[in-house]
Amino acid sequence: MDSGHWVLSFACDDRQGIVHSVTGAIAQAQGNITELQQFTSDESGRFFMRVQVQSGFDRSVFEHAVAPVVSELAADWALDYVGRRRRTLILASRAGHCLNDLLYRQRIGDLPITVAKIMANHPDLGDLASFYGVPFESHVVLPETKADFEQQVLNAVAEHDIELVVLARYMQILSPRLCEALAGRAINIHHSFLPGFKGANPYRQAHARGVKLIGATAHFVTGDLDEGPIIEQNVQRVDHADTVADMTAMGHELESRTLATAVRLYAEHRVLLDGARTVVFS
Amino acid sequence: MDSGHWVLSFACDDRQGIVHSVTGAIAQAQGNITELQQFTSDESGRFFMRVQVQSGFDRSVFEHAVAPVVSELAADWALDYVGRRRRTLILASRAGHCLNDLLYRQRIGDLPITVAKIMANHPDLGDLASFYGVPFESHVVLPETKADFEQQVLNAVAEHDIELVVLARYMQILSPRLCEALAGRAINIHHSFLPGFKGANPYRQAHARGVKLIGATAHFVTGDLDEGPIIEQNVQRVDHADTVADMTAMGHELESRTLATAVRLYAEHRVLLDGARTVVFS
Amino acid sequence: MDSGHWVLSFACDDRQGIVHSVTGAIAQAQGNITELQQFTSDESGRFFMRVQVQSGFDRSVFEHAVAPVVSELAADWALDYVGRRRRTLILASRAGHCLNDLLYRQRIGDLPITVAKIMANHPDLGDLASFYGVPFESHVVLPETKADFEQQVLNAVAEHDIELVVLARYMQILSPRLCEALAGRAINIHHSFLPGFKGANPYRQAHARGVKLIGATAHFVTGDLDEGPIIEQNVQRVDHADTVADMTAMGHELESRTLATAVRLYAEHRVLLDGARTVVFS
Amino acid sequence: MDSGHWVLSFACDDRQGIVHSVTGAIAQAQGNITELQQFTSDESGRFFMRVQVQSGFDRSVFEHAVAPVVSELAADWALDYVGRRRRTLILASRAGHCLNDLLYRQRIGDLPITVAKIMANHPDLGDLASFYGVPFESHVVLPETKADFEQQVLNAVAEHDIELVVLARYMQILSPRLCEALAGRAINIHHSFLPGFKGANPYRQAHARGVKLIGATAHFVTGDLDEGPIIEQNVQRVDHADTVADMTAMGHELESRTLATAVRLYAEHRVLLDGARTVVFS
Repeated sequence: MDSGHWVLSFACDDRQGIVHSVTGAIAQAQGNITELQQFTSDESGRFFMRVQVQSGFDRSVFEHAVAPVVSELAADWALDYVGRRRRTLILASRAGHCLNDLLYRQRIGDLPITVAKIMANHPDLGDLASFYGVPFESHVVLPETKADFEQQVLNAVAEHDIELVVLARYMQILSPRLCEALAGRAINIHHSFLPGFKGANPYRQAHARGVKLIGATAHFVTGDLDEGPIIEQNVQRVDHADTVADMTAMGHELESRTLATAVRLYAEHRVLLDGARTVVFS
Repeated sequence: MDSGHWVLSFACDDRQGIVHSVTGAIAQAQGNITELQQFTSDESGRFFMRVQVQSGFDRSVFEHAVAPVVSELAADWALDYVGRRRRTLILASRAGHCLNDLLYRQRIGDLPITVAKIMANHPDLGDLASFYGVPFESHVVLPETKADFEQQVLNAVAEHDIELVVLARYMQILSPRLCEALAGRAINIHHSFLPGFKGANPYRQAHARGVKLIGATAHFVTGDLDEGPIIEQNVQRVDHADTVADMTAMGHELESRTLATAVRLYAEHRVLLDGARTVVFS
Repeated sequence: MDSGHWVLSFACDDRQGIVHSVTGAIAQAQGNITELQQFTSDESGRFFMRVQVQSGFDRSVFEHAVAPVVSELAADWALDYVGRRRRTLILASRAGHCLNDLLYRQRIGDLPITVAKIMANHPDLGDLASFYGVPFESHVVLPETKADFEQQVLNAVAEHDIELVVLARYMQILSPRLCEALAGRAINIHHSFLPGFKGANPYRQAHARGVKLIGATAHFVTGDLDEGPIIEQNVQRVDHADTVADMTAMGHELESRTLATAVRLYAEHRVLLDGARTVVFS
Repeated sequence: MDSGHWVLSFACDDRQGIVHSVTGAIAQAQGNITELQQFTSDESGRFFMRVQVQSGFDRSVFEHAVAPVVSELAADWALDYVGRRRRTLILASRAGHCLNDLLYRQRIGDLPITVAKIMANHPDLGDLASFYGVPFESHVVLPETKADFEQQVLNAVAEHDIELVVLARYMQILSPRLCEALAGRAINIHHSFLPGFKGANPYRQAHARGVKLIGATAHFVTGDLDEGPIIEQNVQRVDHADTVADMTAMGHELESRTLATAVRLYAEHRVLLDGARTVVFS
C-alpha cells in the first residue's frame, strides 16, 4: 500500500514562510517534489497548499517529518499516497448515466475510487451494479421511511469507512442531519449551471428561459439546497429547436463528465474548502 | 442599394404548406435560394422562417411576388437585401471595450451596421468615437435629467430612422417607457450568465458564489431588468485564484464577443421573437 | 415500423426551384414539415437537402409522392422514418471506452442504432458485449489472416444487412478492398485533431509538439489513411504537465463523445458527402 | 518603478531541495509568496519555477537574497516587478485586427506592454497607430530590400531595448539571421491549429479539408517556419456552409484573442522554454 509517492494537502491561516517550512520538512525526508500548488485567499486570510513528493521512505518516516510542521501551523491536513483509491458510496435513483460512467472509469482505472456500495431508491440500476460487481441495495424511500434509509446510509458509511459519498442523480433531498453528518465529503451533480435554475426540472426552466447554453454543476452537499460550494461546472450549446427532452439527453454527457471530474479532483485531494468557495488545485 | 441578394424573414401561425407557398413565390420571381431555415415552436404554435434568395429582379418585383403570400399568412415579415448595414444607435458609459469592438468591426466591414450616433452618460469615450468618425454626445444623466436624456434618445431614434439600439455596457436602467418604445430593437449586454447574477456587480456575485465559469449574455431590453429574451451567451473558465478584478478583465472579451455576435445576428435578420424566447437562425 | 414521421435526404446537381418541387410533393401528401435544411455547395455545384415530415399516410403513399420529384432531379436519396435504429456492426480491439459508450447509449435509447454484432481482434471486450447482450466475435488478425477476417466482416455486413460499420478504436488498417466495399458507411475515430498527427501514437506526437489542445476526429473510412471526409471534431485543453498517459486518459472522453456524435448524425441521415467534405445538417 | 511585488522565474537542471532553497532566500528577505508554480520535465530533466513575492524591500535587497541561490543552480533566471510593462516592437502588414486589439488592450491597461514602435510593410495601419499614439514606420519590403528592412528592425530592437517582438499578422517570412537574433523573444500568430495547415492560406486549406473547427496558434518564431514552440492555441466551430471568407472573418477574433493571451503570458514571465515545448505557468 506504500507507493513512495505522497500527497500532502492542508489549509491554515496565512503567515510568512509556510512554503519554506513545509519544503524544509520534505527536504529533510529526502523527498523530491513532483507537484506543488499553493494559494492565499485575500478574503479569508487562509493559506492552501497541495504538494506531491517522491520519497524512498515509508509513510511513518515521511509523516514524522511533516507532521510537526503542519501541526505547528494549526492546519487541517491530509497525508495520503498518490493514486490511492478512496472508499466511495454512491446514491442513485433511476437515471444510470452518471453511475455507468463512474463504474466504467473505476474499472479501467481512470478514477481513483473503490465503490464499496450503491444505495438506490429504485431497483432499476441493480443490473448495472451487478455487471461491475458492486454491492447494490434498493430501498423504497417514502416520507415515512426516509429517516430509516438515511440511517442505513450512515451505517454503510461507518461500516465501510467511507471517505466520499457521491449523489449520482439521486433524486431525493437529504435531511439536514445527513447533510451535516456528510459535510465536506458528499458531492452532488445538479443538472444546471448554478446558481441558475435551482430546484426541480432545471432543463424545463432552462428551456422556458430560452438560454443558449445548458450546464451542469458538481458541488458539495449542504443543508442549503443547490447552494453548496461548487467544485466543477461545464456547459454545452443549445438552440431554439432543442426541446426539454433534447436538453435532457444532451445533459447526460455534461453531467457524467462534470461529476467524474469533481470526483477525481476530490479523490486526489485537490479540493479544499474556503468558506462557501472551493480551492481546486487541478 | 440593390444587391440582387434578398433576405426574407417572417413569423406566423403554423399551418401546412407554408414553405411550399413561399418557395413558390420565390420560384415565380426566378429566385435562387442560397439559405433557408425554418422552425415550428410546439409551445406557441408559431412558424418561423428565414430565406435568402438571389434574383435578377429588383426589390419591387421580388416584393410583389412574396408579399401576397406572407400577407395571406398574417405574418410579421421583413424583406431586406443581404448585407445592408442597419442604422444603429449606441448607448455607452465609461467602459469602452464593447464600443471599441463594435466600431472596429464596423470599419473593417465585419458587422453590417452603420453607427449613426453614440450617446453616453460620460464624456470618456468621445476620443474613440471621434477616431472612428462617429458623432458622439455626452449627457449628464441624473434622476432629474434622466427623462430628458431618454427623450433625446427617442429623438435620435426618430431622426436617424434607427433600426437597432445597442447598450454597450450602458450603466443606467432604462425607464419602462423607453423599454416599451424600443421593444424588439434594443440589445443589452449583461456581464453574467443569465439567469445567474442579475443586477449590479455580477462578477462580484460570481466570485462570492465561487462559480468555475463566468459568462456574458446579450438579450433584448425589456421592462423586466435582465429578463429579456436571450440572443447569445458565452462562458469562460475561471478558478479560485481569479479575483473580481481578474474576472472583470477576462469578461471584456467575453462581453465584446457576445454582443458583437448578437448584433450581427440581429442585423442579418436572424433573430425572431417567440414570446420570451428567441429563434436564432445562425 | 411506421412512425408517421419521415426523413428524406438527398443530394443532386443544383438548379432553381428544388425546394419548391420537393415541398410541393410533401404538401400533396398532406405532410407537415418539422425540420428542413438545405445547402448549395459553390465549389461542387451540388445541392443538399434534408427534410422531416409528419404525415398521416404510410410509407408507400409518402414515397409515391416524393419519389418522382427526387428521381427527376437525378438525386441520391434516402427515405426513412425518424428514429429508426440503423443496423450497425462495430469493430474493436482492446480499448473499451468508445464501445462502452456506444452500447450504453444504445441501451438507454440515446442513439438510434442496433448493434447487430461486434467483431474484435482481441477477446478483451467480450464481457462488456455480453453484458449488453450483443454477439461478440474475437479473431486473431495477423498479416496472413487479415484477408480472412475482412471477408468475415463482409459476410457479417451482408448477413445482417448492415448500414453502418463503426471502428471503435479498432487498431488495424483496413485493406483498400474493404475500404472500397464500405465506402460512405464506415466511420472511424482518430485520436487527434486531423490533419495534425496522422498515423500511429497521435498523443505521443501531440506531446512532442507541445500543443495546448488535444483533439479527436470522427471521419469516413477511405483507402487514404486518416484522410477520409471529416464528420465531427472536438478538442480539450492540455498543458505542459500533462504526460502522454494523461492525454491518453483525457482523450477517452473526447473520443467517445466525438464518435457518438458522428454516429448519431449519420444514423439520423444528417451527413451527406460533398466530395472530400461532408455536409452535416445538425 | 518599484512596486514591492516581485516575480522571479527560472529554469535549471532538476535536483532535490530547489523549492526549499529558493523559498528560504525569500523568507530571508521577509517576502510573502503570492503565487508559486513549479514543474519538472521528465523528458529533459529540467526544473522550472515562477514565484511572485511581496516584500517591503527594494529590488537590490531582494536580488541580493535570491541571486546567490539561483546562480548556484546555474539557472537561467529573470527578476522583475509584477506588472512592469515590457518594451515591445510590433511588426504588421495590412490586416489590423490583431494590432487594434493589442493597442486597445495596452491603452486600457489590460496588457503589460509598452509598444515602442510599429514597423510594417504596408502603410495601411498608420492611422490606427497614430490614434493610439504609437510611432509607425512603413517600409516597402521586396526581395532586394528585405535585408535592409530586417536590419532596421534590429536597429529598433537595440535602440528601444526591445524585450518582445510581436508579429501581428506580419505576412513576410523572417530570415534565419533575424530569427536567430530574436530567438525566444519573438511571437507570431499563425491562423491555423498547428501542426495542421502550415504555410500560406491556412483557411483555404482548412476549408478544402473540411475540418469542423478552425484554430489559431501563437508560437515563438524560429528558423523552422510554423514549427516554433507553441504558447497558446484556440479553436472555433465552423460548418460546411462557412466559406473561406467566413472563416477568415471568424478567425479575426480567434487570432486576436490567442495572440493577446500569448503576449500577456510572455510579458508576465509565465512562458519558459523546454526544448521544443513551452512551460506555461498560467
